[in-house]
Amino acid sequence: MEGVESEPTRIMIAVNGSSIKGYPHPSISSRYAFDWTLQKIVRSNFSGFKLLFLHVQVPDEDGFVDMDSIYASPEDFRDMENRDKIRGLHLLEYFVGRCHEIGVPSESWIKHGDPKEEICHEVKRVRPDLLVLGSRGLGPFQRMPCGYDQTQGG
Amino acid sequence: MEGVESEPTRIMIAVNGSSIKGYPHPSISSRYAFDWTLQKIVRSNFSGFKLLFLHVQVPDEDGFVDMDSIYASPEDFRDMENRDKIRGLHLLEYFVGRCHEIGVPSESWIKHGDPKEEICHEVKRVRPDLLVLGSRGLGPFQRMPCGYDQTQGG
Repeated sequence: MEGVESEPTRIMIAVNGSSIKGYPHPSISSRYAFDWTLQKIVRSNFSGFKLLFLHVQVPDEDGFVDMDSIYASPEDFRDMENRDKIRGLHLLEYFVGRCHEIGVPSESWIKHGDPKEEICHEVKRVRPDLLVLGSRGLGPFQRMPCGYDQTQGG
Repeated sequence: MEGVESEPTRIMIAVNGSSIKGYPHPSISSRYAFDWTLQKIVRSNFSGFKLLFLHVQVPDEDGFVDMDSIYASPEDFRDMENRDKIRGLHLLEYFVGRCHEIGVPSESWIKHGDPKEEICHEVKRVRPDLLVLGSRGLGPFQRMPCGYDQTQGG
């Protein structure tokens, strides 16, 4: 089993925006999770891994800053959605761009909803070998009540 | 940060004996955790990682099979302890031996007590970059209430 170069190990990393600087800046914990993955897992084996970046956008959170604006037409709402989508893509650009520079294959996508629920849902759907989360100073075992069965995903 | 060969990534793997075959056979979940680590994390980068095998022996559990024996002297108890120690070492030999064959650096040691408590204690003491546990069919987030702060260990 060991020593055989098989399919790359797929590592999902959940990333979000900075709560201080806002879009498109990644949060400190997201960058830490990314740097940790590169430094501790990928190391110099760039072709052995594939990084999967998931960004979950929380509905209304970003629209909130525009509460003073008047939305008169469906187009206005569509514009707002597009603007959020573009901001999310700019966030992902940071991670995908760095992967490209280093030579690590990557994919990224955006989901909308509750981050905890969406991350669990995407883990079950995509079945990565490993899930890496920024800790926000919390212990890793205190905030992820996901019923994901490792024996199915591993 | 990436691309620079630094200290090897230290991965702790908690291993135990087979509940069916007994010592010195490793449990299916221990072998799975080991194989998963080699296949998904170490891959072909043998010098980039160091595997740390912790085996926790539960007091009385192994002595139980000898309940019919009569222990007449302190030497008898010492013999029993020595026998358990030797069995534990034989268990670890499986993992250390395979690491040696492959060329992955490793260390191993035995602790006595409650596995959950001892694993948490050793994680805090040794500060590995990653802890790998066999799942016994349970989800990975359902059985490890360890208050280990990832940001200190990573």
